[in-house]
Amino acid sequence: MGKLLIVGTLAFDAIESPFGKTDKILGGAATFIGLAASQFNVKSSIVSVVGDDFNQEYLDLLTSRNIDLSGVEIVKGGKTFFWSGKYHNDLNTRDTLVTELNTLADFDPKVPNDFRDSDVVMLGNLHPDIQMSVINQMELRPKLTILDTMNYWLDHSLEELLAVLKRIDVITLNDEEARQLTNEYSLVKAAAKIQELGPKYVVIKKGEHGALLFHDKSIFFAPALPLEEVFDPTGAGDTFAGGFSGYLASTKNISFENLKNAVIHGSNLASFCVEQFGTERMLDLHPREVQQRLDQFKQLTQFNIELE
Amino acid sequence: MGKLLIVGTLAFDAIESPFGKTDKILGGAATFIGLAASQFNVKSSIVSVVGDDFNQEYLDLLTSRNIDLSGVEIVKGGKTFFWSGKYHNDLNTRDTLVTELNTLADFDPKVPNDFRDSDVVMLGNLHPDIQMSVINQMELRPKLTILDTMNYWLDHSLEELLAVLKRIDVITLNDEEARQLTNEYSLVKAAAKIQELGPKYVVIKKGEHGALLFHDKSIFFAPALPLEEVFDPTGAGDTFAGGFSGYLASTKNISFENLKNAVIHGSNLASFCVEQFGTERMLDLHPREVQQRLDQFKQLTQFNIELE
Repeated sequence: MGKLLIVGTLAFDAIESPFGKTDKILGGAATFIGLAASQFNVKSSIVSVVGDDFNQEYLDLLTSRNIDLSGVEIVKGGKTFFWSGKYHNDLNTRDTLVTELNTLADFDPKVPNDFRDSDVVMLGNLHPDIQMSVINQMELRPKLTILDTMNYWLDHSLEELLAVLKRIDVITLNDEEARQLTNEYSLVKAAAKIQELGPKYVVIKKGEHGALLFHDKSIFFAPALPLEEVFDPTGAGDTFAGGFSGYLASTKNISFENLKNAVIHGSNLASFCVEQFGTERMLDLHPREVQQRLDQFKQLTQFNIELE
Repeated sequence: MGKLLIVGTLAFDAIESPFGKTDKILGGAATFIGLAASQFNVKSSIVSVVGDDFNQEYLDLLTSRNIDLSGVEIVKGGKTFFWSGKYHNDLNTRDTLVTELNTLADFDPKVPNDFRDSDVVMLGNLHPDIQMSVINQMELRPKLTILDTMNYWLDHSLEELLAVLKRIDVITLNDEEARQLTNEYSLVKAAAKIQELGPKYVVIKKGEHGALLFHDKSIFFAPALPLEEVFDPTGAGDTFAGGFSGYLASTKNISFENLKNAVIHGSNLASFCVEQFGTERMLDLHPREVQQRLDQFKQLTQFNIELE
């Protein structure tokens, strides 16, 4: 069984959308990544930090999904990372209302011994120095190291981010971030420039407009499944990353053809995530539904034109 | 050989983009539709109107592509429809600088006798009354009637448009127009409502984000080919319509599976159109290039996941 190491936040989220609002609920990149990856036959471990205000039931829930939590530090008297955001009517844009780093401010990741030989490392969106620390703790070079990031680090820690990019294989970021990082409007040109910075594979996430995978001269595209209703986009990008990395860890095959499949699996799981608030839908997801929706993805994208 | 009837403008365009500007050059929906359709084995005819200021070389050029022009009225002393626009830096938005209807203002379409039994009718973006007049001139109900429209008619001639929608099979419009027509943000819901208005098939064009085909509960998606550089988007939607309708007329097969192929052929040809100003690229397009790019579309979208 493939091993997947996940680094990212465990958090409280409070979300407002046109469809309602939540109290503090379970959130965080590592949570969504781990839940998505648990759909595959993979041994995964989360490296993170929380305060002792973090609900034991949340930890039990992740453990019940076969996710190792020996790398999760629980800081006595500390408070867990808290994020609150409000989505606009089109759900494509949001305002961050509150960000309380709390215990995350001094997070010093410790990779469990048993996962220092992981096949795949998924570095969730965090300070690049934390991502670098995890890379440096690996005993063997992983088959694949995947990094997610966001505009905040481009603005505030670009030098550190550029240093990490030299050490990874796949970067995932959104279209605006790709443009910001390279000063190129064309995503084809942007992806080429990003490959020169280190990662051989570039995944550009376009939200409701799908995701692009770039490698050398090859491009693959996966649409987002058109849905009647998007309820809450929170965690969609992390769920994509969890499906992508979980599938690759379970298959241990990092050919470009298999990375294409990973993009589809990631998009497929993300399409469930947005159907309910927070982690709700991911916690109530049957493998049968996942297969049925994969079939929808086939119907959506596959055609039969014979070339002359 | 299938017959395709095309109704739309023959025009002069003057275009400004970040890459330069043109004098009055050949443009118009019927021009782009006809040139795209001429890539297929199809007998096509344009119904349109121009003034006698329209260059004979443009007419010769269309005729040389095996396009019948017996339905093109040349108004003596009249001036040809003129449109001028300026694209913004991202090429996704543009300002219309000039619209001179000229001879188009009194356009009374006359379908040539030989094309009153066309297999496919492509109603380019025009006043709905003109589109209706063409439908009424058909002797046999075509296998497929396709209508393109735009927000201007939603704003100014909604009642007439709704009357035409009851008589057609496929509508093509962009995402914002689909939302405006139905008051639904979700494109899935919008497409369902549009089907209730008449057309069994709905094609929603999303520009650089691709195109969606809806029919009953089925959805198909074709991405736009990611390009290093988009030079001039003028005519891309009409080129899509020309590839879509031309392919269907040439195959005479209107199954949903074949409509999927038509969407790919339309997207494929549109990807060439935007590479140079106006019709330049379409006039200099070798079948070999078309086939090669179809292969790129396959690489871009096809994957191999076996369902359990």
